[in-house]
Amino acid sequence: MRYEEAGVHIEAKAEALKRAKEAIAATYTPRVLRGLGAFGGLFDAGGLKEMKEPVLVATTDGVGTKTLLALQVGNVSGLGFDLVNHSVNDLLAQGALPLFFMDYLAASRLEEEVLSALLTSLAEACKALGIPLLGGETAEMPGVYREGAWDVVGTLVGVVEKEEILGPERVREGDLLLALPSSGPHTNGYSLIRKVVEGLDLEALVPELGESLKEALLRPHRAYLKEFLTLREAGVRIHAIAHITGGGLPENLPRALPEGLGAEIRKGSWPIPPIFPYLQRLGNIPEEEMYRVFNMGLGLILVLPEKEAQRAQDLVESFPVGRVVAGSGVQLV
Amino acid sequence: MRYEEAGVHIEAKAEALKRAKEAIAATYTPRVLRGLGAFGGLFDAGGLKEMKEPVLVATTDGVGTKTLLALQVGNVSGLGFDLVNHSVNDLLAQGALPLFFMDYLAASRLEEEVLSALLTSLAEACKALGIPLLGGETAEMPGVYREGAWDVVGTLVGVVEKEEILGPERVREGDLLLALPSSGPHTNGYSLIRKVVEGLDLEALVPELGESLKEALLRPHRAYLKEFLTLREAGVRIHAIAHITGGGLPENLPRALPEGLGAEIRKGSWPIPPIFPYLQRLGNIPEEEMYRVFNMGLGLILVLPEKEAQRAQDLVESFPVGRVVAGSGVQLV
Repeated sequence: MRYEEAGVHIEAKAEALKRAKEAIAATYTPRVLRGLGAFGGLFDAGGLKEMKEPVLVATTDGVGTKTLLALQVGNVSGLGFDLVNHSVNDLLAQGALPLFFMDYLAASRLEEEVLSALLTSLAEACKALGIPLLGGETAEMPGVYREGAWDVVGTLVGVVEKEEILGPERVREGDLLLALPSSGPHTNGYSLIRKVVEGLDLEALVPELGESLKEALLRPHRAYLKEFLTLREAGVRIHAIAHITGGGLPENLPRALPEGLGAEIRKGSWPIPPIFPYLQRLGNIPEEEMYRVFNMGLGLILVLPEKEAQRAQDLVESFPVGRVVAGSGVQLV
Repeated sequence: MRYEEAGVHIEAKAEALKRAKEAIAATYTPRVLRGLGAFGGLFDAGGLKEMKEPVLVATTDGVGTKTLLALQVGNVSGLGFDLVNHSVNDLLAQGALPLFFMDYLAASRLEEEVLSALLTSLAEACKALGIPLLGGETAEMPGVYREGAWDVVGTLVGVVEKEEILGPERVREGDLLLALPSSGPHTNGYSLIRKVVEGLDLEALVPELGESLKEALLRPHRAYLKEFLTLREAGVRIHAIAHITGGGLPENLPRALPEGLGAEIRKGSWPIPPIFPYLQRLGNIPEEEMYRVFNMGLGLILVLPEKEAQRAQDLVESFPVGRVVAGSGVQLV
């Protein structure tokens, strides 16, 4: 018996890596001392010595079952952007900027085409934001993954000056909640989405959406790094940031608020992408559940003093959606 | 339609996290500023400022299909050690020491029992080596994972002084290869192992092994951090280290050697754990394939000057298994 017979194809992996090698190498900066092929990636952290009190920030995330939808329509080229952009926003929520990214790709069978497309997508997403794709792992596990299924996972490491860490302790009653719009469901709620759209033609134009379901549902997770840097450079003081992901507004916004304070969100104060009412109607989903599963158009919520919020609105596309109030949790009014 | 109906159980995850919380918190050091519950883990990197030229090292790995065997016999308590220890050895291969660990656990269904056992195991493995379990992610994806299957993945971030990075460029012809023994197959070759032992009683004593297959096959991946620190404190100069994982000796040892140099390994110079000849006979596996898939008892191979090797042997259990020679690749003689 040989390893090939047991279902592990070492060669396909090597071929795919070879094809994506150039895109991966293009993400390297002079700080990358060793990348692909080493037992671990090496990243020159000399820059941290010039900081007053450097704090490393790390976040691990997966794209979830959005991969299944992408595989179904034969286009995985957005998934790398989904993963990297999602991770970047999680760092921003602490005020941190990215240093390097590590990926993990696993499947029932490492098909060369899919693997090289995924690696290339990850590399392009990293390159677009100036983040080195420092290393990663691929695994073929026919006994673990369903036939044709993939998992797309990664860890982003970044850094923040200790005195600049954002968070609940900075937040005050009366602070404004400023939302940066999402591009759609991003990477959350896809188990539910897949049930709702089961059997529909994903390629057909849906007049209500002005595009096909494929386009509306595979649009990548938006990264807010550019907006964050714009605000930072302009000296806009932010108190806290909530990245609206799994669990929606009611689970994510309170993570940015201290004990004793809650949020009041005014319905109708931001544009809800048409995909959400479309899914709600089609799946007969209660409104409360919609807010618990989806971002509903709220990609990132900045918590900041009213005066700062006014300046921020002039600098980046954003919507004042509510306020920090005494109490707890999130109230939609 | 609600999210629960689509197969995602948010509550089971929260319960399991609650159960493992204490074990996770026990891994925290004063350097952990924010752990569980934050959008990202925060690790005080002030220590890096005292280094001359700090280099961050990161490695991402999974336990592979060893999880399936562990689930089959209903004992996942070693898998956290498998993952963390494997990762630590990958850092040692660069001369780096661990700073913090991030985990990713995914399954078709996040059963509370399994999830809390896995998180506890990861925390215990981290605690045993003094590594904070800084954060992580869990995902339930019935459409991606086979019924009852789990994937256990993690990223370890560490640091090394630039001038102390180990690697091929330090290696010289004539250097000795000193092996630190493995505890068994560690985390590699389990797709093949599962085929070979299919249908056998894993709980029964196998006289040839002196233990059951369950014991021999689930013994955790060994970490060599203690040995590495012992050698370092004694001032033993190491040139390079190869961690023998997937691809075995022929794929991993050359990663520690420069162009123009190869390795000559003397068969019979180290103890081969009885599980390997047992699997070879049972599966009728060619010897060449055994060395390509398994570590064959060679957990970690240190490449170092002969004089240093003699000192190292007095300090840690190890076996001189060969030499660096002109040429390329690995020759078993």
